[in-house]
Amino acid sequence: MKLNILGCYSATPRTFTNPTSQVLEINNHLFLIDCGEGTQVQLRKHKIKFNRIKHIFISHLHGDHFFGLVGLISTFRLLTRETDLHIYAPKGLKEVITLQMKLADSWTNYKLIFHELTNTESELIFEDDRVEVYTIPLDHRVYTNGFLFKEKEGERKLDMNAVLNAKIDVAYYRKLKLGYDVENNEGDIIKNDTVTDPAIPPKSYAFCSDTAYNESIVPIIKGVDVLYHESTFLEKHKALAPKTKHSTAKEAAKIAKLSNAGKLLLGHYSTRYGDLNKFKLEASECFDNVELADDGKVFDL
Amino acid sequence: MKLNILGCYSATPRTFTNPTSQVLEINNHLFLIDCGEGTQVQLRKHKIKFNRIKHIFISHLHGDHFFGLVGLISTFRLLTRETDLHIYAPKGLKEVITLQMKLADSWTNYKLIFHELTNTESELIFEDDRVEVYTIPLDHRVYTNGFLFKEKEGERKLDMNAVLNAKIDVAYYRKLKLGYDVENNEGDIIKNDTVTDPAIPPKSYAFCSDTAYNESIVPIIKGVDVLYHESTFLEKHKALAPKTKHSTAKEAAKIAKLSNAGKLLLGHYSTRYGDLNKFKLEASECFDNVELADDGKVFDL
Repeated sequence: MKLNILGCYSATPRTFTNPTSQVLEINNHLFLIDCGEGTQVQLRKHKIKFNRIKHIFISHLHGDHFFGLVGLISTFRLLTRETDLHIYAPKGLKEVITLQMKLADSWTNYKLIFHELTNTESELIFEDDRVEVYTIPLDHRVYTNGFLFKEKEGERKLDMNAVLNAKIDVAYYRKLKLGYDVENNEGDIIKNDTVTDPAIPPKSYAFCSDTAYNESIVPIIKGVDVLYHESTFLEKHKALAPKTKHSTAKEAAKIAKLSNAGKLLLGHYSTRYGDLNKFKLEASECFDNVELADDGKVFDL
Repeated sequence: MKLNILGCYSATPRTFTNPTSQVLEINNHLFLIDCGEGTQVQLRKHKIKFNRIKHIFISHLHGDHFFGLVGLISTFRLLTRETDLHIYAPKGLKEVITLQMKLADSWTNYKLIFHELTNTESELIFEDDRVEVYTIPLDHRVYTNGFLFKEKEGERKLDMNAVLNAKIDVAYYRKLKLGYDVENNEGDIIKNDTVTDPAIPPKSYAFCSDTAYNESIVPIIKGVDVLYHESTFLEKHKALAPKTKHSTAKEAAKIAKLSNAGKLLLGHYSTRYGDLNKFKLEASECFDNVELADDGKVFDL
């Protein structure tokens, strides 16, 4: 699981800071999460293959989280994309995108599939044989979801020496990987864990931006390996957090602690601050494993 | 008159090239012309004061000419702008912008005034005491206008030595600047041109992007000082120009010649080409005074 931070600052794009966008590589998927203005240029800088992005998740319809999307959709067309593109976003985005296409007398030569979100409870919005994605209802000024990406339990690994010694027919290998006991060529029952090793433990990643301090997300993200939580403000501006429905670094850390997260990534910094280290310092008072997201950083999780 | 090229490439924004946007400084106005994705960052790089932009002209509703506008409008709000903002653009843009604001439950704390264009004949769309702006109907795949910016005839300059010698009352100075003959303190009629110098000749600038080769614009831009004309293609791809309703460098030069323009600025290059000098070479076969626009260039006209 690898996380490319394309942008992690709040509000306006500036010369050296970008609004929210990140790419999560998980089990061979490239999930684009949020798409502020300039995201397509950031994707180029990160050398991320446009064509590998098949699923885009948009948290909410504030501009710093989606103004780059219509341009990316247009660019995909210019690059003669043929692969389907799925967009998971609050209701309304489809209207914005299609209106702009209509006015440009334009189209996509690939299938553009909108999955419009309206549910205020957490729901499963994507699933294949290896990954699940759930919404995380957040508390912001407009309808907003975070996203929880969960790897499914993987297959057990064959211990080939043990398998061969146990004289198991090759036709049973698949069953072994799925965890079943099998019969060998001599009619003996072979216990699965004597010839296989456990699967690599599945990883999970929770993206939570933008939100006021909101403990109701804790049960949804409980035990998550990595939590990206917005921290727009430092303590000295903590009065602004509830007013604007954002969080402080310390509040992000409290959520990480309550959720028993493995690691906390901070982001969505207000551009009023020069020194990001203060975010880490303030969060570290509540929670041990804190890292700072920053544009261009790649986290190997 | 000064022209800041923020972006002059066609299609998608890339790491080192930007879609169309430019700022024309003319008689103390800062006119923003087109607003592709990333324009607000380009404005910052050019150190152009956001608050001085009061009029934005959008040629047409293809994304590379306006996808940066909604973000700029939002940023103006975040910067607590109070100055009115006038937007001159094809009908439809207002719907796109207001829909996005509605979805974001957002607003502007300054007056946002849309002047929606539908006329297929050239028309005067802006005028004050020093500048006029006319549309230039272009021939593109969607409804498109270029814009002609014309300084008005300025005031004559007083030759103060001559004025004092002629014993003209200070109350007549204004009338002198406007070109009238006046009576002096002794009752003599003083001929205007004996005590004033001619005004600085008014300048004009025509912005023509995007368009197929289209001689019908020649009467509108006749005698223009500087013509920015799109040149998406080189000769080797000239077959693509009419199909996509774009022009070649040579066609841009033909229009410049027919219009008796003072200077031709080329731009809106297809990103398929590495070497811009070929555009200049091909245009120079038809027209003498050719320059290449490029992102970051500033032309003192």
